[in-house]
Parts: sequence; structure tokens; C-alpha cells
Amino acid sequence: MDIALLGGTGDIGEGLALRWANDTDHTVIIGSRDVEKAEAAAEEYEAALGDSDSEATVDGRTNEEAASRADVVVTAVPAYHLTDTVEAVAEQLGDAILVSPAVGMKHDEDGFHYNRPGVGSVTELAAKAAPEDTPVVGAFHNLAAGRLADLEAELDWDTIVVGDDRDAKATVSELAEGIDGLRALDGGPLANAAEVEGLTPLLINVARHNDGLHDLGVQFH
Amino acid sequence: MDIALLGGTGDIGEGLALRWANDTDHTVIIGSRDVEKAEAAAEEYEAALGDSDSEATVDGRTNEEAASRADVVVTAVPAYHLTDTVEAVAEQLGDAILVSPAVGMKHDEDGFHYNRPGVGSVTELAAKAAPEDTPVVGAFHNLAAGRLADLEAELDWDTIVVGDDRDAKATVSELAEGIDGLRALDGGPLANAAEVEGLTPLLINVARHNDGLHDLGVQFH
Repeated sequence: MDIALLGGTGDIGEGLALRWANDTDHTVIIGSRDVEKAEAAAEEYEAALGDSDSEATVDGRTNEEAASRADVVVTAVPAYHLTDTVEAVAEQLGDAILVSPAVGMKHDEDGFHYNRPGVGSVTELAAKAAPEDTPVVGAFHNLAAGRLADLEAELDWDTIVVGDDRDAKATVSELAEGIDGLRALDGGPLANAAEVEGLTPLLINVARHNDGLHDLGVQFH
Repeated sequence: MDIALLGGTGDIGEGLALRWANDTDHTVIIGSRDVEKAEAAAEEYEAALGDSDSEATVDGRTNEEAASRADVVVTAVPAYHLTDTVEAVAEQLGDAILVSPAVGMKHDEDGFHYNRPGVGSVTELAAKAAPEDTPVVGAFHNLAAGRLADLEAELDWDTIVVGDDRDAKATVSELAEGIDGLRALDGGPLANAAEVEGLTPLLINVARHNDGLHDLGVQFH
């Protein structure tokens, strides 16, 4: 499958790109508003993969070009860039599945808190900005980017997948489970995304308050 | 230590009572508004412990009596009874630590959702209702009652402990870790309770949408 990572020069984009390139046969396309940044990141990721057995190639493109070439388009951008990013590639999406991993958070002296948008969740913001016939799936909200990008690190994490299109959710779950040590769990429809997104500030708070814990994910059992 | 479980006839109360009675030397006091219900539950829990090696006794009292005898008072009541329950025992709390495990949820056709109270979290509702000098700690929010009450079942779960009083939090963490298979993690101050409470509806949604998963808890790593 061809996977575009819009904003793939950022930390969650880097982690997903490296894992998919290393663990699967999918083609990974890094998108950025700035094609030179995308190309530089793609080269950097290929170099990071040099030590592994992977023969994957990673390409850098503009977000629009990346979206137009992909079966699955992941918006690996901060929540406040999400609507703009989706609108910018709306005409290129074609039959692609749109995947949103973004979480809105605010930070005060106590810790990190979930900053829930009026439409219900950040994932639903993506759905609102997307063309009506584009299936939108929420996934990868709760993955610590640092550990994800460290190919030496074992994950043993779960990721919750939410969405209203059963086939799109199955495709994204399969992509997720292509990453070694990642299990995809069904979180139900898109309307359940807020509970998934709200786990991310909790992971950060727990990492900040417990010695020896950092770059946390969770397992459900 | 003497632990009172107010509303200890309910499912989370049963689970905590059985685990503490089975796994530790603490004295467990079941509180209820109705002393006969408390006594009946205490007898039932002792009978359930009969198969184990425990020599623990479990007593049943009114909530007020239970609170007056305890070092740690756990409000094992639904969120909508929390304020009333705390106010009813306010004069009996003395130097006790108050522990709130309650979570507010609503349910629609999509799934379970966190129902965040205006004061920020259900745990902060307990703090608001408690006497000013009573240390309030949030813990045990994310434990599936069914598995907790099944002494044959292994837990391997984490519970997040939040609060503004460092000593009280340490005491509650120690109580939590007295239960086999339960690890206490520091979630920071009381103001971080909402992110902890919000995990409970996610656990329910994931259990509902994935075959073979039920009575879920989490591990952070």
C-alpha cells in the first residue's frame, strides 16, 4: 500500500515512517508544505533505515503530491494545523482513507489536559474538513513519538482505531498491526474519538510524575 | 490500617474489599446507608474469602460509623451520590484520608463518554464536598469491578493516583500496591483527575468492540 504522511517531517510522522518502512513493504511518502523539507526528511529516514535489513525507499513530496499518490493519507500534523492541512489536499484525496492521529492538549502548572474541540474531538475536526465521501479513521493518537522513532525500542503497545466506515477501519488496523509490537483495537465509531485522544495527556502526566517511566504507551487487558 | 468502603455493597466496593481482605492485613469496614445491607455484604464477602487462606474479618456498619473508625475512607459510590455521601460523613472523617474512585459517564448509541463535571472532575467534586483539612486522593478509577471481585483472576493493572497531599498520596499508593497485581502510578495533582477518569469510558468502549476482551484495565509502559 502507498501511505502518505502529511507533515511527515514532524516527530509522529518520523516514527510512523520509520516503522512502516522498516517493518512492512508499504511505500512511505513524506509530505510537507515545503518540498525541500520533505525531501530532506525522507533522506534522513532512509539513512536511519540503513542499519536495518529494510530495502524500503522513502520519498519526499509536497502534501498535495503525497496525498494524490496514496491509498492511505495520515495527517501527522498538530491539531491546530489539521483543518488547513486536510482542506489543502481535499481535491487530491480521491479514494484514499484519511487517518488522523492528532490530539489537542493544553498545559498548565498541574500538567497536560485534553483540549476538546467543539465538534467533539480532533478526529472529528478532520472528518468535518474532509470531502464527504472520504472515509476518516482515528488512530495512532497514543503513541510516544520518541520511542516510535527508535527502531531499537520494543513497543508492546495498543492503538485504538475509531471510525464510521468498517472497511476503512479494517485497512487502518491492518496497517497498524504491520508495525511490530503494535496491536490495533476497535474503539467504535468516530464519536468515541474524544476518549481515545484524552488518553494522551494522561500518558504525559504519568511519565512526568514517575521516575523511570517515559515515552509511555498502554496495553489493554 | 483500617479502611472504610462507603457504599461498599456495590461492585467496586466488593472488589476492593475482597482484594484487601485477601491480599493484606488491613481491616476492611463495609459502609452503607442501610446497616443491614452493610452487614449482609460483609458476611457475603467473608464467605467468598472462605476458600482463600485469609483470616481477615470484614465488618458492616453505617457509612458514618465506618468513616469514624477508618484511617482511609473510600467513597465507592456512583458519581451522582458522591457529594451527598461525603457530606453525610464529614464530621466523622477526623484525620482520615478520603479516596474517590468514582467516574461520571454518559452513554449514547455510539458508546460511553466521560461526563465531566463543572468543577473539573468527579474527584474534585469529592474534594469540594470534604472538610477543608481532609486530604482527598483520586485512585482506583480504572479498575473493572468484575475482575477485581474475582479472586481467581490476575490483574496486572496500573492505577493512577492523583492528589495535592504528598503523604496522603503515598499512603493510598501503598494501599493500592498491597493488592496483588496492582501497580500505583503518580498522576500528579488533583487537577489532573479528569484525564484519569476519562480512561474508564474508553476501557468500556474497547471491551464492547473487541471480541474476547472484557473487564479491561491498562498497563502503562
